[in-house]
Amino acid sequence: MLYPGLKGVTAVETELSDIDGKTGRLYYRHQSVEEIVGARGFEEVCYFLLEGEFPDSRELQWMKELLVKERSIDNELKAWIEQLTNKQSIVATIRSAISCLDRSKDQWPIQTSEAIRLIAKLPTVVAYSYRSKMNLKPVEPLNELDHVENFLYMLFGTRKTREEVRALEAYMVLTAEHGMNASTFASRVVISTGSDLYSAVIAAIGALKGPLHGGAPTGVLDYIEDVKHQPVEEVIRKKLTNHEKVMGFGHRVYKAKDPRAEALKAQLMKIEPKPNWVDFTLKVESETVNWLDELKPGRKLYANVEFYAAALMKAIEIPADLFTPIFCSSRIVGWSAHIMEQSRNNTIFRPAAKYKKSE
Amino acid sequence: MLYPGLKGVTAVETELSDIDGKTGRLYYRHQSVEEIVGARGFEEVCYFLLEGEFPDSRELQWMKELLVKERSIDNELKAWIEQLTNKQSIVATIRSAISCLDRSKDQWPIQTSEAIRLIAKLPTVVAYSYRSKMNLKPVEPLNELDHVENFLYMLFGTRKTREEVRALEAYMVLTAEHGMNASTFASRVVISTGSDLYSAVIAAIGALKGPLHGGAPTGVLDYIEDVKHQPVEEVIRKKLTNHEKVMGFGHRVYKAKDPRAEALKAQLMKIEPKPNWVDFTLKVESETVNWLDELKPGRKLYANVEFYAAALMKAIEIPADLFTPIFCSSRIVGWSAHIMEQSRNNTIFRPAAKYKKSE
Repeated sequence: MLYPGLKGVTAVETELSDIDGKTGRLYYRHQSVEEIVGARGFEEVCYFLLEGEFPDSRELQWMKELLVKERSIDNELKAWIEQLTNKQSIVATIRSAISCLDRSKDQWPIQTSEAIRLIAKLPTVVAYSYRSKMNLKPVEPLNELDHVENFLYMLFGTRKTREEVRALEAYMVLTAEHGMNASTFASRVVISTGSDLYSAVIAAIGALKGPLHGGAPTGVLDYIEDVKHQPVEEVIRKKLTNHEKVMGFGHRVYKAKDPRAEALKAQLMKIEPKPNWVDFTLKVESETVNWLDELKPGRKLYANVEFYAAALMKAIEIPADLFTPIFCSSRIVGWSAHIMEQSRNNTIFRPAAKYKKSE
Repeated sequence: MLYPGLKGVTAVETELSDIDGKTGRLYYRHQSVEEIVGARGFEEVCYFLLEGEFPDSRELQWMKELLVKERSIDNELKAWIEQLTNKQSIVATIRSAISCLDRSKDQWPIQTSEAIRLIAKLPTVVAYSYRSKMNLKPVEPLNELDHVENFLYMLFGTRKTREEVRALEAYMVLTAEHGMNASTFASRVVISTGSDLYSAVIAAIGALKGPLHGGAPTGVLDYIEDVKHQPVEEVIRKKLTNHEKVMGFGHRVYKAKDPRAEALKAQLMKIEPKPNWVDFTLKVESETVNWLDELKPGRKLYANVEFYAAALMKAIEIPADLFTPIFCSSRIVGWSAHIMEQSRNNTIFRPAAKYKKSE
């Protein structure tokens, strides 16, 4: 029997996350993300996913210091990034730069410290690539800032407010891990040959780049723009007639609600002063949910993580070009944890294929 | 039910190759490789795998000209390769360089001409990376030479004999494609998100790099070295006691014979003058097969493609450091054909995962 896309086939066993689509819950190592987000910083969640327990104060300090120590990149790589962004997209440049950073030494299984080194460097690579692509002067990391705050500082060259930092941190915590998506799966397939952390992470970045995964970031913003000028009903009817998706609504797994969307919405409401388009966005959400219920009865299509991620990014003035690069910078935590897990209990991936005679 | 490594799960349908493990046969698009090897050149096989038919003379000329036209790389990339080989393995450098070469423009599905461009450039990247790592002066491609002959010329800076070229060409034809191995599967997972050819090929290179796939090239040579000094029986008994594999013997799929090994053996016998260790290698093969039959009765362990690939490489004086890079340069044909096939009839790969509570 052929399983296109391996739908429904259990390919791995994992301790990292559990998705309950029926009740709309997501657990990292049996802790629900609703409990984690806001209560735990990015560094703590990172440690928790990699190591299996939340860090005590000494471990957290070790983690933070290592992230700060490893966050710079050398001048040679900076020069290459500047050359590459003339020719490649930001995400392709990030993939190339991470490949060039590889100094792996056949360590097996993959170690936490090696993963942290890469998690530390990726936002710097992202910020350099973005600013180079935009012809902006690069911004050096600031040692006194934590991971997420420093990331925002390197991207924009100014300190963001406490609420803005907390909003991005919530996004990065909520998108750090999500089971067997295509990029995470790609990273496990690559590491399963006994390869190295960098090769596996690069494969994941390459997968996330695709528009069916992380690479179609403007869909939600385009939709919100559309319904500024036309009634929600009309836009949705047109999309359904053309067999197009309404971007930001419905999820393959979450059938009741997307817990990440709800948590991001809560963060969005906390940003002060409230951007004046927030009320409009909330109105779009409720109208869209109502019309989808009317036009696709029984399908239960709710706002998903992409809808509120886009709204949150807009609130903290992050341009759409950065959505996928920032997603890389959070999901690398999940990728690394899966790569480590696979390397500790490995079977090489070699599925079967059905031979079909050409027509 | 959990399927570790997806063993026995049919993940894709393909027209590209069919492996009959019971009778020991391998077909590219329903032509057995025994019929193809020697009769068809690398360029023809490449066209056949990508396009579905062998080229007529005009198509073959187009193919050859495109490969020649696209085989050079620019000075910037050459300089980067020189820097990278100071810090990375040859295969990691190749992966980085291919990522930097990415100029993909969201073409979908993936086109033959884009694949040929990359197939043309990879041997040049390999030769530059190898010679830089060895502190040898780079060698520019020679336009009048075909793909394989030029590859050997760029690697060693001298023209190889006709037999040596034909031997490497046979190897590259025989290893161009082999169904759902881990690297090919990785490339299909990556392209399934709607990503690009480069991202998918880089994932495949990263997978091939692992010692469980293409990245343990010295195993066979080490074994032949061992049995120079100790009787075959003794070496094998020791390995079996230590639960080690006898490298170069037995295959997960081929239970009767490995057709690629037989074809490579035939090529090896044609090389003139016959290297004086060839007879010893043949003796090692037959003694090893006999002793494995004695000590592992019923398992039917025969020489596999790695055994005769190593012997052939030795005969044409290719060092072990180049085994995996050359394997990349042939298998990129199969990767590209699978990437194109997946992009034409795509379902994103998103298997299920079983959640396990940590202990």
